[in-house]
Amino acid sequence: MEFFNLIAVEEAKDRLMDTFHGFHLEKEEVHILESTNRVLAEDIVSDIDVPEFNRSTVDGYAIRSQDSYGASESVPSLLKIIGKVEIGKVPAKKIGAGEAMYVPTGGMIPEGADGVVMIEYTEKLDEEELMVYKSISDHENVTYKGDDIKEGEVALRRGRILTPEAVGVLAALGISKVKVYEKPKFYIISTGDEVVAIDEKLELGKIRDINTYTLYSLITRLGGQVVGKAIVKDDYDLLRDEVEKALDMTHIVLISGGSSVGNRDYTAKVINSFDGKGVFVHGIAIKPGKPTIIGEGKGKVIFGLPGHPVSSIVVFKTLVEAFVRRKMGAKEYLPSTRALLDFNCPSAPGRKTYQLVNLREVDGIVYATPSFGKSGMITLLSNADGYIVLEPHEEGAYKGEEREVYLL
Amino acid sequence: MEFFNLIAVEEAKDRLMDTFHGFHLEKEEVHILESTNRVLAEDIVSDIDVPEFNRSTVDGYAIRSQDSYGASESVPSLLKIIGKVEIGKVPAKKIGAGEAMYVPTGGMIPEGADGVVMIEYTEKLDEEELMVYKSISDHENVTYKGDDIKEGEVALRRGRILTPEAVGVLAALGISKVKVYEKPKFYIISTGDEVVAIDEKLELGKIRDINTYTLYSLITRLGGQVVGKAIVKDDYDLLRDEVEKALDMTHIVLISGGSSVGNRDYTAKVINSFDGKGVFVHGIAIKPGKPTIIGEGKGKVIFGLPGHPVSSIVVFKTLVEAFVRRKMGAKEYLPSTRALLDFNCPSAPGRKTYQLVNLREVDGIVYATPSFGKSGMITLLSNADGYIVLEPHEEGAYKGEEREVYLL
Repeated sequence: MEFFNLIAVEEAKDRLMDTFHGFHLEKEEVHILESTNRVLAEDIVSDIDVPEFNRSTVDGYAIRSQDSYGASESVPSLLKIIGKVEIGKVPAKKIGAGEAMYVPTGGMIPEGADGVVMIEYTEKLDEEELMVYKSISDHENVTYKGDDIKEGEVALRRGRILTPEAVGVLAALGISKVKVYEKPKFYIISTGDEVVAIDEKLELGKIRDINTYTLYSLITRLGGQVVGKAIVKDDYDLLRDEVEKALDMTHIVLISGGSSVGNRDYTAKVINSFDGKGVFVHGIAIKPGKPTIIGEGKGKVIFGLPGHPVSSIVVFKTLVEAFVRRKMGAKEYLPSTRALLDFNCPSAPGRKTYQLVNLREVDGIVYATPSFGKSGMITLLSNADGYIVLEPHEEGAYKGEEREVYLL
Repeated sequence: MEFFNLIAVEEAKDRLMDTFHGFHLEKEEVHILESTNRVLAEDIVSDIDVPEFNRSTVDGYAIRSQDSYGASESVPSLLKIIGKVEIGKVPAKKIGAGEAMYVPTGGMIPEGADGVVMIEYTEKLDEEELMVYKSISDHENVTYKGDDIKEGEVALRRGRILTPEAVGVLAALGISKVKVYEKPKFYIISTGDEVVAIDEKLELGKIRDINTYTLYSLITRLGGQVVGKAIVKDDYDLLRDEVEKALDMTHIVLISGGSSVGNRDYTAKVINSFDGKGVFVHGIAIKPGKPTIIGEGKGKVIFGLPGHPVSSIVVFKTLVEAFVRRKMGAKEYLPSTRALLDFNCPSAPGRKTYQLVNLREVDGIVYATPSFGKSGMITLLSNADGYIVLEPHEEGAYKGEEREVYLL
């Protein structure tokens, strides 16, 4: 007996993307010092060459490379020192045949020179005479104007997560403010007569609200913001009032709990009571996470997540994160590693199964051990290193198989 | 001709840890909603059992399992329904032989019952009679008191990064405030006559300050805070004044730039001018990143990082991050994946070489292509997916070799 029609994870994602194809996040401008981990909402086109001039990559002497041809330890070239390039300044002279100028790392290459011989391969006889003990090739130790980034080039693309490296590119271009996507706004509702707030006294038979905190933390990591949260009893009117309030403030409403049949009905009924498409996914072929609901109300996304902390985390990572990343044009990036299974691992037939594993390395080989335990155990998740995904058509994964492990 | 004695990366790390073995970060208390990505500064010992009572993991009927023995589709057991467990409440009755009580997911198991038969395998004939079509085993579908976390158990250890899963454990224990390590304080000084602030006009021959921004971003990601920053000309007195100011405000001072020989001398001289051990690492066998200085002044850590953005990022990740993580008792965690090299890759003899690579997947096999380019190119880094590490004794890495790629 099944209480709802399960659909495949990919089908659920497709319906979610289709329903909200018109949904978009606003852009906002931030200083690059505050931009780390935000997602770029515009293409960055360079209006300069980087570097803006030909630079030396070493401390040495700028010369015409042909003047060093044939030079060696035993037969050095003798060149004339005509001056020194000051760092940060335009060289005062040009290099002619047989001439050399000292240039520090990052210094500008004087006109006429086409290479820099490292100071280690030279010897100054006096203020004017330089012995060069090595032949250099054309362009050696020089970064040319535009070598790094060319004027007119797209230096960073929309959807790019602003890592330290990307922030470095912005700085190189002299860009101090960038457009990023606003932080998506979430409202978290935890439902259930048995759910008690973290600082309330726990009576026997009740349980602490866990989902509000794990979801809050997942949202923080995803780069979203929580604009409100509430614990609501199993009551249609109370839940509807709370969701109505949430819809006016947020992009995405997460209702967790209601894993018993009656509660699931409330959640679906509440979602269907608002203007909009209502519930369009009711049950997903995923383990854990089956009793998941997705709906639309007043143009906002409403997720009915399972009450079990582990299940709600899996569904958040699988669907909520995918949705937000897609809306930011960012790649879905899941850090992973490959590992050998050291234990057989059953799957739920017909459902995409997320199996938690622990990793250990022995003699350079990484092994993954499935962590089995009862549904809803938070330590199962907090002690796991990652998970493997078993597709619905697979019967399981076997000891000795190599699998991709997605890291938690 | 070498300007300083290079020491191995591991030796540099050892000297750093030895010199600052007495250095510690303070602890501070934060609400768990604000704790994501912080590092736990205390062991969390549970003072309760989680769950605090025996719970059902399904919707079904709590029974004595032996009453279901032998039950099947064709030969069901007939049991007497004596009531219903309300979610969040203590059951009003005990289960005796031949009796059953409805219990929702998360509901408390009534005394006398030792298993729950899922509702799917039952049929209610009337208010009092229940057909059970499946035999269950002892403890089936029950999470017992303390199954998840036991009273007195260390649920999370000091040094644990507070992931959503770890935050979930804290919530399960009813802990709303935790001790985490204070965010380490950094001061960033960018040196060089050629370095210009991001919003200043760029004259020919000068370059934009990139390191302040990449370092700021790296510090943000590491969970530190920047308490000050400055650009300083190549001048001993100016640099000394700035470092003196920095030492009073921070844990760690980062001086970047000064990759030319003269500047390196300034940095070392400035570090040696303060009370303390002074410079204890001057040049590291690492590529890129060779001209790195580490010193101690007034009990604070002072890094002289290379001026090249790419080099300073590599040194930050290798030494600064390792230091901070160690001081927080956190594991050094580097997300990585294995990949086949599709190109030969030379190394710098005698130096630990960090070679940037790009990843691509073809038919399920991940290939890594080394990204070659001139020293100091920021796009080289911003376009790379990760890097491989070549040990000082290696001559290079070869096409077809499988290597660990550390992700950027």
